[in-house]
Amino acid sequence: MSQQLTGVAASPGIVTGEVMLLEEEDLSYETVNVEDTDGEKERLHDAIQESKEQLQAIKDKVEDDMGQDKAEIFQAHLMVVEDPELISAVEDKIDSEEINVEAALEQTVEQFATMFSNMDDEYMRERASDIRDVGTRILRNLLGVENMSLAELDREVILVAEDLTPSDTAQVDKDKVLGFATKVGGRTSHTAIMARSLEIPAVVGASQILDKVENGMEIIVDGVNGDVIIEPTADELTNYQKKAQEYRERRKRLAQLKEEPAETKDGHQVELVANIGTPNDVAGALDKGAEGIGLYRSEFLYMDRDSLPTEKEQFEAYKEVAEKMDGPIVIRTLDIGGDKELSYLDLPEEMNPFLGYRAIRICLDKTDIFKTQLRAILKASAYGQVKIMYPMISAVEQLRAANQILEEVKSDLSKEGIEFDQDLEVGMMIEVPAAAMTADILAKETDFFSIGTNDLIQYTTATDRMNENIAHLYQPFHPALLRLIKRVVKAAHNEGNWAGMCGEMAGDKRLTPFLLGIGLDEFSMSAVTIPEVKDAIRNLTLEEAEKIADEAIGYSTAEEIENYLSQQV
Amino acid sequence: MSQQLTGVAASPGIVTGEVMLLEEEDLSYETVNVEDTDGEKERLHDAIQESKEQLQAIKDKVEDDMGQDKAEIFQAHLMVVEDPELISAVEDKIDSEEINVEAALEQTVEQFATMFSNMDDEYMRERASDIRDVGTRILRNLLGVENMSLAELDREVILVAEDLTPSDTAQVDKDKVLGFATKVGGRTSHTAIMARSLEIPAVVGASQILDKVENGMEIIVDGVNGDVIIEPTADELTNYQKKAQEYRERRKRLAQLKEEPAETKDGHQVELVANIGTPNDVAGALDKGAEGIGLYRSEFLYMDRDSLPTEKEQFEAYKEVAEKMDGPIVIRTLDIGGDKELSYLDLPEEMNPFLGYRAIRICLDKTDIFKTQLRAILKASAYGQVKIMYPMISAVEQLRAANQILEEVKSDLSKEGIEFDQDLEVGMMIEVPAAAMTADILAKETDFFSIGTNDLIQYTTATDRMNENIAHLYQPFHPALLRLIKRVVKAAHNEGNWAGMCGEMAGDKRLTPFLLGIGLDEFSMSAVTIPEVKDAIRNLTLEEAEKIADEAIGYSTAEEIENYLSQQV
Repeated sequence: MSQQLTGVAASPGIVTGEVMLLEEEDLSYETVNVEDTDGEKERLHDAIQESKEQLQAIKDKVEDDMGQDKAEIFQAHLMVVEDPELISAVEDKIDSEEINVEAALEQTVEQFATMFSNMDDEYMRERASDIRDVGTRILRNLLGVENMSLAELDREVILVAEDLTPSDTAQVDKDKVLGFATKVGGRTSHTAIMARSLEIPAVVGASQILDKVENGMEIIVDGVNGDVIIEPTADELTNYQKKAQEYRERRKRLAQLKEEPAETKDGHQVELVANIGTPNDVAGALDKGAEGIGLYRSEFLYMDRDSLPTEKEQFEAYKEVAEKMDGPIVIRTLDIGGDKELSYLDLPEEMNPFLGYRAIRICLDKTDIFKTQLRAILKASAYGQVKIMYPMISAVEQLRAANQILEEVKSDLSKEGIEFDQDLEVGMMIEVPAAAMTADILAKETDFFSIGTNDLIQYTTATDRMNENIAHLYQPFHPALLRLIKRVVKAAHNEGNWAGMCGEMAGDKRLTPFLLGIGLDEFSMSAVTIPEVKDAIRNLTLEEAEKIADEAIGYSTAEEIENYLSQQV
Repeated sequence: MSQQLTGVAASPGIVTGEVMLLEEEDLSYETVNVEDTDGEKERLHDAIQESKEQLQAIKDKVEDDMGQDKAEIFQAHLMVVEDPELISAVEDKIDSEEINVEAALEQTVEQFATMFSNMDDEYMRERASDIRDVGTRILRNLLGVENMSLAELDREVILVAEDLTPSDTAQVDKDKVLGFATKVGGRTSHTAIMARSLEIPAVVGASQILDKVENGMEIIVDGVNGDVIIEPTADELTNYQKKAQEYRERRKRLAQLKEEPAETKDGHQVELVANIGTPNDVAGALDKGAEGIGLYRSEFLYMDRDSLPTEKEQFEAYKEVAEKMDGPIVIRTLDIGGDKELSYLDLPEEMNPFLGYRAIRICLDKTDIFKTQLRAILKASAYGQVKIMYPMISAVEQLRAANQILEEVKSDLSKEGIEFDQDLEVGMMIEVPAAAMTADILAKETDFFSIGTNDLIQYTTATDRMNENIAHLYQPFHPALLRLIKRVVKAAHNEGNWAGMCGEMAGDKRLTPFLLGIGLDEFSMSAVTIPEVKDAIRNLTLEEAEKIADEAIGYSTAEEIENYLSQQV
C-alpha cells in the first residue's frame, strides 16, 4: 500500500521517480582547548581561502548554466565568507576561549544565523541559511571532508534529504534530477527558491520523509499540492500522470499570457507589477510579464556592509533598474529598524521592535541619510519612470515633513543644475491602521498609495506575524482588513489618485476578484505569482468582480470570507 | 532674582515654605569575596527579619493615620521582603559567586527591579520602586544605618529630595510637611501617589532642583502646573497666593459635586465610574463619587504569588467589590502576557510581546484557568451588579469561543444549584483596531463595549507607548482614533448596547466634550480624575458637546485637534 506525506508545495510540477537519499556528511569534531591560538587562526584563514575558491568556481558554473541572477546566491556566499565581522568574531572566540577553530567557527556561525533567522523578512531569514551553508563549507574544508558532487549522476532520480543547501542545489544536473523532497524548509527557503528557478518540482518540510523512504523506492512528488506519495499504486500512478499533464498544459497557457494585458473580459485594465530587492531581480520580473516595479525595497542597498551606501552607489542601483524596466518604478525609501538591523547605525534595542523606531521614523530623525537617498532617487528619475514611496507613515505631519525634505533636496539639485523628473510622483505605503483610517486626509497630499498588507494585518489584528502561538489570529481575510483596504482605495480615487498594493495579499489569486472589484489600480507582487493573478483577472468581468467584492465584505469572519473567495477562483 | 524650574505636577495645590533637604544616606560598602557563605546568608535572614518588623510597624501606623488603602503599599513591601523568589535568588548569588550579602542583595534587587520597570503597566512599574525601596531597607539594616525619621519635624517645611520612598512618605507628619519637590519620578511614582493621597502639593521630576536649592531657602511648589519657584519675588508671592486661593476654591467646588449626577446642563446623563485593581481601591472610588466600577483589573489577583489563585480566592475578591459597590462592576477577565508575566505560567518569550500571546488569547488556550475565573465571577454576580468583560478580542470567533465557555460554566453552576445572575451582561474591550473596525459585527453578540484607549492608540499608530524614541507618535488626539471611537459608539448604539471607555482618554477632561458629543455612555477612569470630568460634563449642554465633537473630528492632525479641544475646556 502506498503512503502519503504532506509538506509545503515549494516548486510546482508533478514527477514520478526513484529516490536518491542525500546522506548527511560526518562533520563531527571534538571541542578542545588549544594553546596555539595563532595556529588555529591560520587554519581558519586557509579554510576560508579554500572555500572562497570553491564558491568562485560554483558561481562561475551557475552563471553559465542558469544565468547571472541565480549566481547571486553565491555572490552572497562570497560576501559571507569574506565578512570581516564574522571572521573577527571567530578569531576573538579562539583567543578568548582558547578553543579549536572548528568549535569557535560553529558557535559563531550559529550565533550569527540565529540573529538573522529571528527577523521578519524572508530575505533576512534566508541570510541565516546562507551563513550556515558557508559555515558548513568552511568546516568541511577544515576537516578535510570531500564535497559531494551532484553534478555527475548516472540516472534520473528524485533527491530526498534533510535539507538542500544552495551549494547542493546549484550543482544539480537538471536532466538527471526530476524533483526534490526535503524534511525541512518553507516556501521561501533557498531550496524552494532554487527549485523554482530550475523549474524542478519540489516539496519541502515533509517532516517524516527520512523515516519513510529508502534509496531506490518509487515516489511521486506533487509540487502543486505539496504531497509526496511513497510507492504509489498503479491507479495513483495513472491519476498523477493525468494531473502532471494538466499542470503542464496550464503552465503553457499561463506562459502565453506574458504579453497579454492584465485586463478583465470587459476591458477594465489594471497594472501588474513586481516587488524587487535588487537590480538583478528585474530580469525575473520582466520574464514573468511585470509591467513595472511596484515595490523596490531599497533597504537591501544598506545591508551586508559596514557603512552607509554613498549617493553614487545608490544612484547607480536605482538608475540600473530605471534603465532595465520600461515601466513605472516605485522606490520605497529606507525601511530599516523593526527586525532589520544595520549594525553601523547603532539602533536602540526595543521591547516591541515592530511598534518601534523604524522606516520613516528613523529617516525623519536622521535626515542626512534620508537626503542622500532622496538625491540618489531624484537623480535616477532622469532615466525612467521613477516614483518615491515613504514607508510606515502614521500621521499626515510625517508626510509633510518628508515632503518638505524632498522639496529641499529638489531645490538643491536644481541649483546644482542636476537633471531630475520635475513631475515625479510621490506616494506612501498604507501599512499602519491610523493611515488607513485617515487615507482621505493623506490622499490630499500624495499622488498614490500602496497598501502594505503584511504590516497592516499585523497592526490591525495586533498579531506579530512571526509569533507561532498566535498565527491563527494573523488573518488576511479578516473583515476589518477588507474594509480598511476598501476605504483606502476609495479615498485615493476621491482625490484622483491611484491605489496599489504591495503586500502578500496582492499576489493571492483568491483575493484578485475582491481587489479588482473595489477598484485597486495596481497589484505588486513576487514576479512568480504574476501569471496566476493575470489569468484570474482575465477570467472575470469587472461587474463579476464587484459582485464578489460586495458579497465577500458582507461576511462576519475571516473563515467565511476565505471560504467564499476560495470558491470563486 | 527668583528662579523657576519645571517638573511634573504630581499632586495639586500651591504652597510656599522653607526648604528642608533630605540628604542621601551613606549606604556604601565594598564587594568582597567570602568563604563563609552560610554566615552571609544568616546575615541576610537577620536583616530581612528586622526589615519585616519595621515594615509591620509602619504599616500599622499608616493604617491608623491614613486608612487601610494607603497601608496597602506596606503590605506590598511585606510581600517583597518575604518573596521566596527574591530571597533564594540572593542566596544563590552568595553561593555561586561567593560574594558578601550586600553585593548579592543589591545586584539581585536591581535585576528584579529592572525587569519590572520595563513593563507597560503603571502598577508593574511601581513594583520596581517597591523592590528598590525594600532592597534599600534591607541594605540599611545590614549596614546598621539608622532610618531617618520624618515623623518628628519641629517646623513647617517643604521636603526636597532626589526621590522619596514610600517609607519616607508614609512617616510624614502632614501638619509639618507643606509640600514635596523631587528630582526624579513621574505622575505615577509612589511619591506622587502618596502625595495625592496625603493631599500634600508636590512637583516631581524637577531635574535641576538639587543643584539650585539649599536648606532654608524659600520656595513655592505649584503642584497644579508642575512649577517650583526658588526665592520668589514679592510680586510672585502675591501672585501665587492668589492662585493658591483659587485652587482651594475650585477644589471645594469639585468636592461638592460628589453627590451630584454626571449630567449635562440639559439633562443628558452618563455614568462616571472608576478603574480599580483590588477591592481596597473601592473606598477611594466611592470617595470621589464613582457610581460603579468600569474596569476591575482582575490580573492583580494573579500577581505577586507563585501559583494560580483558587476559585475561592477569586470569588471572595469579586464578592468583596460587589458588596462594597452599589453600582455596576465590570470585571475584566485575566489580561496577562504582553509585558505582564506570571512566572508560574511559563509564558513564551516573544519578540514583540504587545503583539503577542496575551489576555483572551491565553484564556482561550488555557481554558482551565479561564473557567475557574468565570465560575468565580458568576458566583460573585449573586452579590451585586457584576458584568464580565473580555480583553484583546480581535475577531468575532474569539468572542464566540469565550461565550461558549461561559455558557458551559453557567450550565455547570446551574447543575450544581449555585446561584448567579442569569442576566449578567457580557461585553468586551475594544482595544484592537480590527475589533474597532468590525464593532458592528461584534455588537450583535455582546451587551456592551469598553474602549481601551491605551492599547487602541498603540496598535492604531503602531507605536509602543513605552518607547521614548517615538513618544511623539503615540497620539491620543490622532484623527484616526477619534474616528474609530466614534464608529464603535455608533455600532454599539445601533444594536441597543451601551458603550464605555476605560483607557486614559476617558479621564482627560479635554476629551470630555468630544466623548459626550459622540454619545459615549460610560466613562471609567482613575477615581482621582472623576470630579474634574464631572465638572466638565455639568458645564456643557449635549448640543454644545455634539458641535465640539463635529468640529474636532474635522481636523487633519492630532495637534490641531488637541489645540482645539484644549481651548474648549
